[in-house]
Amino acid sequence: MQSMPDASPTKWHLAHTSWFFETFILVPFHRNYRVFDEAYGYLFNSYYEAVGARHPRPERGLLTRPGAGEVNAYRRHVDAAMSAFMNTAEAATWAKAEALVALGIAHEEQHQELMLTDILSVFARNPLRPAYRAADDERPQDAGRGKASDGDAAGDDGSFLTFPGGLYEIGHADGDGDAFAFDNEGPRHKVYLEPFRLAARPVSNGAWMAFIEDGGYRRPELWLADGWAVVQAEGWASPLYWERDGDGRWAQMSLRGLAALDACAPVCHVGLYEADAFARWAGMRLPSEAEWEVAASTLDPSGNTLGAGRLRPCADDRNDTGAPSPVLRQMFGDVWEWTASSYAPYPGFRPAAGAVGEYNGKFMCNQMVLRGGSCATPDGHVRPTYRNFFYPHQRWQFSGVRLAQDV
Amino acid sequence: MQSMPDASPTKWHLAHTSWFFETFILVPFHRNYRVFDEAYGYLFNSYYEAVGARHPRPERGLLTRPGAGEVNAYRRHVDAAMSAFMNTAEAATWAKAEALVALGIAHEEQHQELMLTDILSVFARNPLRPAYRAADDERPQDAGRGKASDGDAAGDDGSFLTFPGGLYEIGHADGDGDAFAFDNEGPRHKVYLEPFRLAARPVSNGAWMAFIEDGGYRRPELWLADGWAVVQAEGWASPLYWERDGDGRWAQMSLRGLAALDACAPVCHVGLYEADAFARWAGMRLPSEAEWEVAASTLDPSGNTLGAGRLRPCADDRNDTGAPSPVLRQMFGDVWEWTASSYAPYPGFRPAAGAVGEYNGKFMCNQMVLRGGSCATPDGHVRPTYRNFFYPHQRWQFSGVRLAQDV
Amino acid sequence: MQSMPDASPTKWHLAHTSWFFETFILVPFHRNYRVFDEAYGYLFNSYYEAVGARHPRPERGLLTRPGAGEVNAYRRHVDAAMSAFMNTAEAATWAKAEALVALGIAHEEQHQELMLTDILSVFARNPLRPAYRAADDERPQDAGRGKASDGDAAGDDGSFLTFPGGLYEIGHADGDGDAFAFDNEGPRHKVYLEPFRLAARPVSNGAWMAFIEDGGYRRPELWLADGWAVVQAEGWASPLYWERDGDGRWAQMSLRGLAALDACAPVCHVGLYEADAFARWAGMRLPSEAEWEVAASTLDPSGNTLGAGRLRPCADDRNDTGAPSPVLRQMFGDVWEWTASSYAPYPGFRPAAGAVGEYNGKFMCNQMVLRGGSCATPDGHVRPTYRNFFYPHQRWQFSGVRLAQDV
Amino acid sequence: MQSMPDASPTKWHLAHTSWFFETFILVPFHRNYRVFDEAYGYLFNSYYEAVGARHPRPERGLLTRPGAGEVNAYRRHVDAAMSAFMNTAEAATWAKAEALVALGIAHEEQHQELMLTDILSVFARNPLRPAYRAADDERPQDAGRGKASDGDAAGDDGSFLTFPGGLYEIGHADGDGDAFAFDNEGPRHKVYLEPFRLAARPVSNGAWMAFIEDGGYRRPELWLADGWAVVQAEGWASPLYWERDGDGRWAQMSLRGLAALDACAPVCHVGLYEADAFARWAGMRLPSEAEWEVAASTLDPSGNTLGAGRLRPCADDRNDTGAPSPVLRQMFGDVWEWTASSYAPYPGFRPAAGAVGEYNGKFMCNQMVLRGGSCATPDGHVRPTYRNFFYPHQRWQFSGVRLAQDV
Repeated sequence: MQSMPDASPTKWHLAHTSWFFETFILVPFHRNYRVFDEAYGYLFNSYYEAVGARHPRPERGLLTRPGAGEVNAYRRHVDAAMSAFMNTAEAATWAKAEALVALGIAHEEQHQELMLTDILSVFARNPLRPAYRAADDERPQDAGRGKASDGDAAGDDGSFLTFPGGLYEIGHADGDGDAFAFDNEGPRHKVYLEPFRLAARPVSNGAWMAFIEDGGYRRPELWLADGWAVVQAEGWASPLYWERDGDGRWAQMSLRGLAALDACAPVCHVGLYEADAFARWAGMRLPSEAEWEVAASTLDPSGNTLGAGRLRPCADDRNDTGAPSPVLRQMFGDVWEWTASSYAPYPGFRPAAGAVGEYNGKFMCNQMVLRGGSCATPDGHVRPTYRNFFYPHQRWQFSGVRLAQDV
Repeated sequence: MQSMPDASPTKWHLAHTSWFFETFILVPFHRNYRVFDEAYGYLFNSYYEAVGARHPRPERGLLTRPGAGEVNAYRRHVDAAMSAFMNTAEAATWAKAEALVALGIAHEEQHQELMLTDILSVFARNPLRPAYRAADDERPQDAGRGKASDGDAAGDDGSFLTFPGGLYEIGHADGDGDAFAFDNEGPRHKVYLEPFRLAARPVSNGAWMAFIEDGGYRRPELWLADGWAVVQAEGWASPLYWERDGDGRWAQMSLRGLAALDACAPVCHVGLYEADAFARWAGMRLPSEAEWEVAASTLDPSGNTLGAGRLRPCADDRNDTGAPSPVLRQMFGDVWEWTASSYAPYPGFRPAAGAVGEYNGKFMCNQMVLRGGSCATPDGHVRPTYRNFFYPHQRWQFSGVRLAQDV
Repeated sequence: MQSMPDASPTKWHLAHTSWFFETFILVPFHRNYRVFDEAYGYLFNSYYEAVGARHPRPERGLLTRPGAGEVNAYRRHVDAAMSAFMNTAEAATWAKAEALVALGIAHEEQHQELMLTDILSVFARNPLRPAYRAADDERPQDAGRGKASDGDAAGDDGSFLTFPGGLYEIGHADGDGDAFAFDNEGPRHKVYLEPFRLAARPVSNGAWMAFIEDGGYRRPELWLADGWAVVQAEGWASPLYWERDGDGRWAQMSLRGLAALDACAPVCHVGLYEADAFARWAGMRLPSEAEWEVAASTLDPSGNTLGAGRLRPCADDRNDTGAPSPVLRQMFGDVWEWTASSYAPYPGFRPAAGAVGEYNGKFMCNQMVLRGGSCATPDGHVRPTYRNFFYPHQRWQFSGVRLAQDV
Repeated sequence: MQSMPDASPTKWHLAHTSWFFETFILVPFHRNYRVFDEAYGYLFNSYYEAVGARHPRPERGLLTRPGAGEVNAYRRHVDAAMSAFMNTAEAATWAKAEALVALGIAHEEQHQELMLTDILSVFARNPLRPAYRAADDERPQDAGRGKASDGDAAGDDGSFLTFPGGLYEIGHADGDGDAFAFDNEGPRHKVYLEPFRLAARPVSNGAWMAFIEDGGYRRPELWLADGWAVVQAEGWASPLYWERDGDGRWAQMSLRGLAALDACAPVCHVGLYEADAFARWAGMRLPSEAEWEVAASTLDPSGNTLGAGRLRPCADDRNDTGAPSPVLRQMFGDVWEWTASSYAPYPGFRPAAGAVGEYNGKFMCNQMVLRGGSCATPDGHVRPTYRNFFYPHQRWQFSGVRLAQDV
């Protein structure tokens, strides 16, 4: 099922990630590998021009064949061959293939995340508003679904952290141990930043309701011109998946179905246009991706405690700290955070050689960078240098906002 | 799975036809009937404005819920209630409901046909070209799939039957025994016809290949202006579901998968624009629906033997007869035959009272009438007065052409 | 200036009509004729595929060159050549050209009318609402602009004339003296009609206001399905060119600018969908084109007095008659009257030979017939057999409604 | 005449620039000023939400009224009032208005340029290919129209200038004397640049022909994904306004009409997508706007000699120098040069207060920066800090390419 061209059916994700291993590792490197089905190259190539023609993206939902059983058999076939390859490859071969295997795993993690965003997109268009997971399931699979506690909205306490200006280095350095990074995260390079302040928490649903009540979606002076055109054309009046019940109370569709909106949770499913308008309304701005990365990197070199607030109710979080100096909370694993930076190559960027060079580089136009990772991102998949990117109107990802200010 | 807004998923057809019985018979007439699920009224109403809002047609394919199991349970629930109702209804109630029950059955028969056309539409957009039914299955489920015998194309023998001009009556008469007819088939009324000739067979694939080879799709003088605009915008160069292999030979996608084109079989999956252009190319014209019905009615009042040629190879057909005077062949059950008549109310037409009045009447604009029934039409569902209708550009039905001439 | 693809700039109309004489008469028949500018064939061919490629219709408004001066020079050049040709042509040449000259004149008359409809279309989209002609100008150049007298709306007096059923002949007969007719008006042929009644007057603006106030544009049960889709997509809530002032009073944009709506004048600038919905609301129907022509022909063979009511205020009209038996009023020259007949070839119709065969025939699909002629139609250009045709959604012509009923 | 929504009619430009003075200076500051026509505010407001509703941009071409005479009277009225105001304003009033007057003049200069680009857009869609100015007119009004001399294409000599890395300051400083700058040119701020090389000349038509011949428009690996989608959807195979004659030779439509392509002139009318693809094909990249500005600023603080090569034939230029070290040529006044920088606010940017704050800020998304100025830009209007911006697909401006490289 495909709700829109941006999204893909679950079955397609499952087949495409196996196709990636088959095409970029098994076929070129695994001796005697037998391609599962020659037709799959056409069906499950996403966008790699260098490896041939492919099924049109908006028609992925029309593929009733191969069925789920066949796709699962495909996955088992590829998995078995990958196991055999990794156990038996000679050193020289492995030296060539190793980085591609890491890329294939990171790629599959990205699609694990997309499967959830795309399932929510389909379910949200079903008038029955079905749930992917029961509301009392403990696993943290949808954003900001913590219990509201005292009605005080997260991110509204006005806490900001100040960072000094100066020359910084950002980006992934090539010789950076064994850590995996996508090609677009490097080269590591210098940037000059003015002093800035970054909000301790993402913007909450409660704060967003105040924006709505103050006419946020009806006031052109708050919006970028292109954003205002979308607001009017699409009739936007709230984040995606918000709806009002008969009494005017807000509910939100999530992977746990339709439920009352939690004012403390981070706002989710807003686009760059909305994030930017909210920031203007609040008298602030969005951070650049360099500011975000500097903040994420300087505060906590280990990177562990920054995610401590993940999915916790906002009041509990506040109680947790009691500390005199605030820390940055919910940087990783709650919502992707829009930045003010358009997605562009870092100085000296070179795409990887071969077809996988299409992985990131050719999308470096018209999109904006998001940082941090969402509740749907696999554990351990995000890091301070990770650059996600979407078009400014897109809202079906678990995307939110963290505010910044000049000093 | 929904290939395009014109088509619907199989699951939707199954639920919609039960919804029809539930909404128009069980709810108003069956005491204590319990509606299966209140939400289904919104999901499975097709186009009846009088019974409330409904799910947008182009989004029928997004309904992953209810699943096939739930829809089957819905069907059993409604079937059981219909059985009980028909066994126990009092005479006065039955008098009111009887015509609606007949309508519900005819309606379900129409959707049985549409399920097949819509499945073919989905399968034809799958690069794997899957088959709905094995090629050696004996049941006659797709048009013109008979064995070619001697290369002589059906309909190309030039046989025409001549009918005298004069005043005729066409249409279904109200008091016409127990025979079911849709409201749009009446009232029976007089029409004046000039003398005309009607082809003994539908146009064959072989004749259509000659049209293509003669530049049929590239010569504007053969086309209606609106048709020519579609040819250019859509890049039409053959009937829908035709494709050429690497050697330039034509194959056709059908419910039995992709196979070499049978030159003897009736051409299928052409729209009105193509039918009209072919007729002009051949120096002839399409029949009016009145001509078609007069021919169908006068030749064989019993209506039985006219369908004898159904799905037989063309050469065998000719051998069958050996008769000095030709008869009309393949009038019923091979392909729907486009007529030159726009779909309009007969003189004195009144839609049925209530919501079912929307069944036919409100579509009487911009569409053209087809007659005869296709290989996907349930047995016994067609009759000489039956009026099918589609837009002139539509081609996903099993639709073909029978030529006519002035005398 | 071109307000929309349906309309054309005045300058284009002026050049196109001269191009018609040049291309179909002067070039083939007038010895030594010098083509004014070879490039004009591309620029001013409207839709004749047989005489070559042409400038895209939606881009006619982009032609700043040739300027008005050059186009006028073109007209003088062609007019002079036509004069010379008509004065000097030999009998054999004239015998071939004569019908084409008559066609060229009728063609120019059609474009005289279209210039006015297209100018109104441009002016109506200008927020300044400019007037083509001062309000006190006596010439009757826009529909229904007579003085309202007593508030009693024309056509609302319920007068209907009854016509017996039977076999009639309609259409233009070839040997019909010298009278000009387009090819689509023939052949003359028999039709069988049931008895019918036709309204003595077109529907008035006053009656249409009652339709609006009764929710006419908000009730789907009154509309054809395709019409209702347009109403919703376009937000139609009144005829084209109607607007409400701050006090809720209706005004109408016409060639005399924006002025208060005259309740007595015939409603104008409605499409077939609206005409059909109004008729259903009134419990009646639209006449077929055969009914209209029979009524126009049988009542007054001379054809003169039928137009007597032209542009007169409704009350005066009523005073004029005082007669016991009503007559049909405003049949010609007030508004084109939509019929229930789709535009199709008459039995035995053959388009004219050569490129002028494209004049009418290739448009015989998807359009509906209108009869009678509007206030913008040149005097003497209309007649009982005249068949005008437009798409059911089109409203920029001076088109209105006359109701019919079964007996 | 309006060729497309991006462009505007000449008359509209003339009225809009006067409306700007009227609205932002005369009405708020000039005592007793009489507004020329209240309706003009609606007609000639371009995009200022804060000053009210406005005529839809795509319909500017529909305004036959007011005519050219009225618009000229409007200009005279506003000009006279501006003269009077500037001669009589008290010091306190003038202090408030002065910056707006400078803005109004710069605004009018921008529209002088747009009038030429928009006229070319209209003329280029006219099959007659009319010329705005005779080919032998001396004034340099269209890009790259110098005489070709020895067939050696400008920019193809491989000359690059190298600039060291380090911290630079770019942007307009507020206290920068009396020099006018738009708000988006500041604040002046620090950027860190890696060492880079910049081409001494823009890419020439000759080089672009080599790109075409090497399959540049048919090789997806050269293109950004969004760019490749446009190439396919629009069928791009050359810069805008290029066309091949019957012998396969390239001609170019310019303000001097259609003429043979000059291989030495800078390529013009390419979009960002094409510029980026060309750079990738050449193994280079586009400069960032900071690199461009640093180069423009450091080489020649006076800013005068940089433009010396303007519109001169390439060979002459080379003869001119004979110098061992190359200089940057054609930086100003030949073609706008696409940069790799998306249009975004500089650090600390604040839009001007009031409605004129909409002038630049709200467009800071989805567009790319161009630098340098074209042949249509008024003399003295460009400067090193000037930031022009268009969408990456837009090509109707006089826009070209200068290449950069990493060191």
